[in-house]
Amino acid sequence: MSDELATQTIADFVLGAQFEDIPSDVRHEAHRTLLNWMAVAVGGCRHESVDIVLETLPAADQSASVLGRSERTDGLNAALVNGISSHVFDFDDTHLATAIHPAGPVLAAILPIAERQPVTGAEFIHALILGIDVTCRLGQSVSPDHYSVGWHISGTAGIFGAAAAASRLLGNNAEQTRWALGLAATQSSGMREMFGSMCKSFHVGNAAKNGLMSAMLASKGFTSSEQGIEAKRGWAHVTSTKQDFSRITDRLGKNFLIMENSYKPFACGVVVHPGIDGCIQLRNEHDLTPDDIESIELKVHPLVLELTGKTAPRTGLEGKFSIYHSCATAIQHGKGGETEFSDEAVNDPTAVSLREKVNAEIDPSVPADAMGITITTKDGRSLEIYVEKALGSLENPLGDTALDEKTRDLCQPLLGDSGTEKLIETCRGAVELADASAITTAATP
Amino acid sequence: MSDELATQTIADFVLGAQFEDIPSDVRHEAHRTLLNWMAVAVGGCRHESVDIVLETLPAADQSASVLGRSERTDGLNAALVNGISSHVFDFDDTHLATAIHPAGPVLAAILPIAERQPVTGAEFIHALILGIDVTCRLGQSVSPDHYSVGWHISGTAGIFGAAAAASRLLGNNAEQTRWALGLAATQSSGMREMFGSMCKSFHVGNAAKNGLMSAMLASKGFTSSEQGIEAKRGWAHVTSTKQDFSRITDRLGKNFLIMENSYKPFACGVVVHPGIDGCIQLRNEHDLTPDDIESIELKVHPLVLELTGKTAPRTGLEGKFSIYHSCATAIQHGKGGETEFSDEAVNDPTAVSLREKVNAEIDPSVPADAMGITITTKDGRSLEIYVEKALGSLENPLGDTALDEKTRDLCQPLLGDSGTEKLIETCRGAVELADASAITTAATP
Repeated sequence: MSDELATQTIADFVLGAQFEDIPSDVRHEAHRTLLNWMAVAVGGCRHESVDIVLETLPAADQSASVLGRSERTDGLNAALVNGISSHVFDFDDTHLATAIHPAGPVLAAILPIAERQPVTGAEFIHALILGIDVTCRLGQSVSPDHYSVGWHISGTAGIFGAAAAASRLLGNNAEQTRWALGLAATQSSGMREMFGSMCKSFHVGNAAKNGLMSAMLASKGFTSSEQGIEAKRGWAHVTSTKQDFSRITDRLGKNFLIMENSYKPFACGVVVHPGIDGCIQLRNEHDLTPDDIESIELKVHPLVLELTGKTAPRTGLEGKFSIYHSCATAIQHGKGGETEFSDEAVNDPTAVSLREKVNAEIDPSVPADAMGITITTKDGRSLEIYVEKALGSLENPLGDTALDEKTRDLCQPLLGDSGTEKLIETCRGAVELADASAITTAATP
Repeated sequence: MSDELATQTIADFVLGAQFEDIPSDVRHEAHRTLLNWMAVAVGGCRHESVDIVLETLPAADQSASVLGRSERTDGLNAALVNGISSHVFDFDDTHLATAIHPAGPVLAAILPIAERQPVTGAEFIHALILGIDVTCRLGQSVSPDHYSVGWHISGTAGIFGAAAAASRLLGNNAEQTRWALGLAATQSSGMREMFGSMCKSFHVGNAAKNGLMSAMLASKGFTSSEQGIEAKRGWAHVTSTKQDFSRITDRLGKNFLIMENSYKPFACGVVVHPGIDGCIQLRNEHDLTPDDIESIELKVHPLVLELTGKTAPRTGLEGKFSIYHSCATAIQHGKGGETEFSDEAVNDPTAVSLREKVNAEIDPSVPADAMGITITTKDGRSLEIYVEKALGSLENPLGDTALDEKTRDLCQPLLGDSGTEKLIETCRGAVELADASAITTAATP
C-alpha cells in the first residue's frame, strides 16, 4: 500500500476489512475499551458542560441516547455530549505513545448510528477497532511535533477515526469515504491552550460530532479533496512539521493499535499513579489504616511535583493535582476513583490530616512513570515499595476484574446496581449482540 | 490597549463600541457589503452543496430563513447553508490584503439571530462592521504565513468575526465574549487543499455556524481559555509562524477594515478582471459586436495563463478558468456575471468562435492586476487599451449603480423583478430598519 496516497489507503482499508480477520486478542481488547469508555461516559454525564450543551443546542429529533441520563437528543448532538461526558473526568482510555484518548470520538460517533439503523454487535465492535486504528495511525504520523506545537491530538486525530468508523457503518463507498476523511481533515481542530476549561472535553465531543457529520455529508455526495491527509496543503503538512506516512500504512490490517490502548485505574493524571498504586499495595499487604501512619516519604521524578505539587487542595479537581491528597486517599480508601477525588473526599478531615504526613522528594534517578514509597508506622515499622510500572500502564494493565470494579464505582450512582451489572454484561458480550443499540439502552437509566 | 491580551482587547472593543462613533463612510460601506453579500448568497442558493446540506442535516426548528429559497431551518443550519451559498460562485467580497472573504461568516451567523430576537437595523449593521473588523484584524496578525502554509483564512479567521458579532447581538458580557473567542479559536479550521471541491464554500458556512455556536454556548456559561488568540498554545502561535498582535490592536475603533473591502464585478478569479473590464470598455466605446472582431491580442502577466489558460472550456466552471472565454463573453454580452459563466454561455457557438480569436502573450512587464488589450476589427481598425486597475479593485471600486446591477443579475431569477428591487432597497436602507429580520424576509421568495 502506498504511503503517498494515505487517504485512499485508509479508505480502502476501512471498507475492505473483514471481521473474521480480527484476532481474538484484538476483539477482547475492543470489549475492554468499550466497557471502560461506557463507564466513564456514564460517570461524567451530570457534568455542567453536558447540561449547558443540552440546554443550548436544540435537538432535531429524539433518535439518540444521552448516556447515563433519561433525556434524548438527535444523533449529532448525542455525539457531542457523549464525547464530552466521556472526557470530563480525564478517566478515559489513553494511547500512551501519542497521548490520544482514542475511544471517545469513535464511540460517540457510532453509537447514534446504531440507534438509527440495524447494526450488529460484531459490526459495531469492528467499526470501533478500525476507527481507533485510523486515529492512532494518523496521530503517529505527526507525533510528537503536532502535539508539541499545541494541537490537542485527541480531537485533531480523533475526527478521522470517527469519520472512518461512521463511513463504514453508513455504507459509504470508497470515494465517499475519501470525501469523509477530507471533510474530517478540514474540520480538524482543538488546541491545548484550552486545557483546564470545558473546551478540553468539548474537543472530544466535537471530533465525534463533526466526524459523524463528515460521513453523513459524504454519503449524500458532498465532495472534498480526496487527499486531505497527505496533500501539500492537507492535514499532515498544515498542522505538523513532521509527516511520516509510513506510520499510517505500515502493517495496516496486521497490527491493530487498539492493542496499545490503556485504561486508568485512578481518576487523575498518570504521573501520580505509581504513588496511589504503591500506597494501596502497602495498605492491603499490612492492613494499614490512617491511624497507623506516622509518615509517607516519596521519591519522585521532578515532573511529579511540577504537575501535582498542590499541598492544600480545596476541590476534587485540585485534589487530582496533589500527590499529597492522592496518596492520602489511597491509604484511606484503598482506591483512587472519581469518588476519592470528589470535593467531599478532598475536604474530609482524615484525608486532610493524612496528606500532611506525605513528603515528596525529587530524585532524578526515578523515572517519570515510577515512584519510591516508604511508609513509617506509628509502631515503628518502615514499609517500602518501589513501583516501576504502575497499574494501568501497558506493562501492567488494569485487569478485567478491576475494570468491572471501576465501572461499578462510576455507574452505580446513575444506573443502580442491577443496571450497572447489565451494562458490564452487555459490553463484555457486545460482539454477540444482534442489535448494537442494546449498548446504549444498557447505559441509560 | 495591550497587544499582549488580544482576546480581552477584542472582547472589550466589540462590547464597548458605540454606533454613533461609526463614521458615515464606514456605514455606507457596510451597506454595500451587505447588499453585495445578500446578492451572491441568493444567487448561489440552488447549488447542489446547499441541497445536500439541507437534505442531510435535520432541523431542530424552523426559526431561520434559507436565503433565496422557501425552505426554513434552524439557526445553526441556516448559518451553514447561507454561508455556503454565498461563496459557491466565488463572487463575494474580498479583503484583498489578506485574501479573506469577510462578510460570509459574520452575516450568515447574525441573520438567524435577527430572526429570533429583536435586532434593529442599526444594531445589525454595527455588528457587521465589528465582526468584519475582528476577522480582518486577526487575519492581518498572521498573514501571510498562515495562508501560505495552507489555511483557508476566510474560514479560520472568519469564525472569530462570527463569534464576536454574535456575542454582541446575544448580549454576552466580557467574560462570555472571551470564552466565545476561545471557543472560536479551538474550532478554527479549513484548508486550501479543499479548493475545487464543495468544502471551499463549506469553510465559510462552517465558520458562521461554529462562530454562532461559540457565542451561544458561551452565553450559557461554557468556558474556554480567555487568551485563545494570543496564548503560547493558542490560535496565532499554533496556526502561524508569524504573529503580529499590533495588527489586531492598532487604531482599533478608529480604522475600520471594512473600508478595505472589495466587490467583484465579474464572476471569476481576479486575474482575468482587467481583460473583461478592457474588452467591455472597447466594446461600449466602439459599439463592437462579435461579428466585428478579427482578433483580440492580450499582453498578460505569467500568472494569468498559469491560472486561466484553459483554451477550450466545456463547463461554466471551466470558463472561469479561461481568459479566452472571459474576453469572448465580455465582447458578446458586455458583462461577466454568473450568467456569462454558465454552461450554456460557455458552449454558445458565438462565444466559442469568438474565444478562438483571442490570443494571450506573456509580458513580464505587465503586473498581475493589469492587462494590455488590442482588438483588431474586420474593417481594419486597431483598438487598444491598457487596464491598470480593473473595475472592482480598491482603486477603482464597483460603483453603487453597478452593484445594484450585479444584484439584479443574481437575484431576478430567484426573487423576480419586484422582489429584487425590494431586496436592494432594504439593504440600502438597512440602518433605518426597526427590525433587521426584514433583510432575510426580502431575500426569500
